[in-house]
Amino acid sequence: MPKVTEEHRVARRAQIVAAARSCVIEQGFHKATMADVIAASGLSAGAVYGYFKSKEEIVAAIAEEALSNVDDLFETVLVTDGPLHPVTALEHVMNHIVTLAERPGGDVTRVGVQAWSEALRNPAVMEIAGGKYRMLRSRFAEVARRAQADGTIDAGVDPEHVAQVLFGFVPGFILQRLIIGDVTPESYTAGLRALLK
Amino acid sequence: MPKVTEEHRVARRAQIVAAARSCVIEQGFHKATMADVIAASGLSAGAVYGYFKSKEEIVAAIAEEALSNVDDLFETVLVTDGPLHPVTALEHVMNHIVTLAERPGGDVTRVGVQAWSEALRNPAVMEIAGGKYRMLRSRFAEVARRAQADGTIDAGVDPEHVAQVLFGFVPGFILQRLIIGDVTPESYTAGLRALLK
Repeated sequence: MPKVTEEHRVARRAQIVAAARSCVIEQGFHKATMADVIAASGLSAGAVYGYFKSKEEIVAAIAEEALSNVDDLFETVLVTDGPLHPVTALEHVMNHIVTLAERPGGDVTRVGVQAWSEALRNPAVMEIAGGKYRMLRSRFAEVARRAQADGTIDAGVDPEHVAQVLFGFVPGFILQRLIIGDVTPESYTAGLRALLK
Repeated sequence: MPKVTEEHRVARRAQIVAAARSCVIEQGFHKATMADVIAASGLSAGAVYGYFKSKEEIVAAIAEEALSNVDDLFETVLVTDGPLHPVTALEHVMNHIVTLAERPGGDVTRVGVQAWSEALRNPAVMEIAGGKYRMLRSRFAEVARRAQADGTIDAGVDPEHVAQVLFGFVPGFILQRLIIGDVTPESYTAGLRALLK
């Protein structure tokens, strides 16, 4: 297949996923229909069905995208030289989340929250969420190992357990930002600095 | 109204909410219908509609119940004498959550996750979730103030910011337990002890 065609396919697929994401942000996974997605994408029904056979396949693609958004960040965070404090790593994650949330096209963290709920009753989304979150948590395990090597935290503790807690900060940040609304990376970092070693 | 009738009403209402909760655990907020709730409750349609005019009203009642479950716990945790370490308070919360989750009738934390998602598109649930979570977070602010008085954490930090982080641990614990499945109060407490002052 010539390269331009593959690029075209990738771009078209992204266009459909973006349209579907905005439908989901407005209406939720359950109320958004294929017809809504087709209308929002500006493509023909035939074109959309050429990429996604059903709403379930689009839901899986949106969930995968929403849950992948934080993972790339660690490429940047973990390559830094010198000691990496867990609070610094979390501060990067929170700033990144707010940047993503404020991008034009709607707050992607709202899709993330819906993906959590969807995972509990849709095995395909559960598999995607489980895989993505295991991968993301393994990045936090790297942060934990770095902090143990730097002497910030006790080297005798299982880094996977530390990673559970570091990873576990993120949903609480997202949720409070959406539901209570007064949480910022600055306020959360102040709280983290008071609590963490 | 005679007292026995009021008690009867409260019990009947609880019976309907319990039936609706089990429907929601099995099918989700969106797929469960009033007919399912009526069948699961063992009451007549007329009896159920005497308590809840619509599925929306039942959804609000279930969400309220699911989000209230942790609040009672603080009555017990906060009355203890002597220093109260934030890790100890969180350990109580996690053990309480697991006890609730393992009660017969289905894992209520699954309803909590669905309530988060529902809050983002249903203003009635958003109002309930916002109110409940503000109240729960104010309990964590009391834990923060106790830890500041005990000298565990810096007294110069806004206890509301510390409360954001303490409260923020809980959704991450619930979510990892449901989606990754390997998180226990013990593993999480070990991680917390390594990280927290």
